[in-house]
Amino acid sequence: MRELLLRRRIEFADTDMAGIVHFGRFFVFMETAEHRFRDELGFPVDRDRADDGTPLTWPRVSASCDYRSPARFGDELQIGVRVVEKGRSSLTFAFTFAHDGRTVAEGRVTSVCCRLSPELRAVPIPLALAAAIEVLPEPPTP
Amino acid sequence: MRELLLRRRIEFADTDMAGIVHFGRFFVFMETAEHRFRDELGFPVDRDRADDGTPLTWPRVSASCDYRSPARFGDELQIGVRVVEKGRSSLTFAFTFAHDGRTVAEGRVTSVCCRLSPELRAVPIPLALAAAIEVLPEPPTP
Amino acid sequence: MRELLLRRRIEFADTDMAGIVHFGRFFVFMETAEHRFRDELGFPVDRDRADDGTPLTWPRVSASCDYRSPARFGDELQIGVRVVEKGRSSLTFAFTFAHDGRTVAEGRVTSVCCRLSPELRAVPIPLALAAAIEVLPEPPTP
Amino acid sequence: MRELLLRRRIEFADTDMAGIVHFGRFFVFMETAEHRFRDELGFPVDRDRADDGTPLTWPRVSASCDYRSPARFGDELQIGVRVVEKGRSSLTFAFTFAHDGRTVAEGRVTSVCCRLSPELRAVPIPLALAAAIEVLPEPPTP
Repeated sequence: MRELLLRRRIEFADTDMAGIVHFGRFFVFMETAEHRFRDELGFPVDRDRADDGTPLTWPRVSASCDYRSPARFGDELQIGVRVVEKGRSSLTFAFTFAHDGRTVAEGRVTSVCCRLSPELRAVPIPLALAAAIEVLPEPPTP
Repeated sequence: MRELLLRRRIEFADTDMAGIVHFGRFFVFMETAEHRFRDELGFPVDRDRADDGTPLTWPRVSASCDYRSPARFGDELQIGVRVVEKGRSSLTFAFTFAHDGRTVAEGRVTSVCCRLSPELRAVPIPLALAAAIEVLPEPPTP
Repeated sequence: MRELLLRRRIEFADTDMAGIVHFGRFFVFMETAEHRFRDELGFPVDRDRADDGTPLTWPRVSASCDYRSPARFGDELQIGVRVVEKGRSSLTFAFTFAHDGRTVAEGRVTSVCCRLSPELRAVPIPLALAAAIEVLPEPPTP
Repeated sequence: MRELLLRRRIEFADTDMAGIVHFGRFFVFMETAEHRFRDELGFPVDRDRADDGTPLTWPRVSASCDYRSPARFGDELQIGVRVVEKGRSSLTFAFTFAHDGRTVAEGRVTSVCCRLSPELRAVPIPLALAAAIEVLPEPPTP
């Protein structure tokens, strides 16, 4: 799959006393966008299994966000999601947030594919999932 | 144990664009206050075991809050925690929130003692825990 | 307007280590559902003005929730929103949450219509808004 | 001021269904740690004024976090806070999170000093505040 475009409306509880969306909320927006991407791809994140059937989990190893302009209550953000790096065990998603043609923020999250048992340990991305993921160039800067 | 008094400082992320603490945050404050109460009692909530050793959990069955006056960023709330009802399998905690002598809010949360396996099912509160909990009258209304 | 029915998908960040939706999140779900109700009614909450033009705000005076069964990551909740009490200055909304025909939770939130300046003070609900709101009986218990 | 060391206990609502602290919560922990740093410095963030008396605000322009090991319910994190860059209008704080001698995470947040009115615009950091802030080297990598 290439880039997925989503829309998300800002809720009152996303805001803080500065009158804008709290900067930490964008990480929740990114996580949910990544999950929608995985759903669309046909590999929902809660059904990941290693090639030998072991349940998998994807702990985050890094997350970042650059803020370009504020988002406010009621804004309907357009969110772009794409994979920009695919390693043997890791995926990096890049996200763009825009409102009415104006860039709001850009973010990235890198996760590592891990088996849960007998102990948490990085393992290769399952073959079918790895094959389904297309690596795209970085999103264009605004 | 009788009433436990705690203090909690309002964080920026607790606020919303109305400039005051979001009403939903008080439920997190109550939960954490209940956990501190359990710690002080010597029965931390994550170590609860039925009298036969089965791990226990306490799903909430009801929660409510009445809001008297707003709390703001930087306010150090005084929080009172007490048990006001003790059933065979349930506990009801009552909470008071005040700032500088002014009542901010009052809340209640009722939870049921459940075993996790083989299926989630209400069980009696362990004897030692039940014995340690003193039921107090409702907190005085402001 | 009569009852409004909405759908909301549970996000990963809505859950806690018990593996289910954190009980406090339902208050955010209620707030957003109330705002959608107001949008559908044609009176978005961020454009409320008193009959003399003063900006209005709706601080919550009470909120409660009864929890019937857990909601989990990925569940698409069906949310019902209706007004069950309309006072001179206050509105009480009732909410039902269901998943796949199973009741998850029921809640209520009461807010008071206030002018922001010169000081926060309860005022009558604007006439056009009051006229648009139909009071319904309590939602049927499951 | 040099590095400030704080402690913060993980709450139940900080966790998600993976059983560990949600990665987005660390940004709230960083924000609050930055505010405590400013309090200790004698320049609380909600009292910032430009040298001409205009109220100031500090929108975030970037935030990032690297996750080294999970934090769990009840853990008391040790948080280190220091300034690692001081520009004419911007500050970059670096944060370290550890538990029992184990590194949990490392983060950075950059904010820009802005006047609120007549429009949001970057302005120089007030002289007294700038003078009080000591720039330290990056925290040692674990």
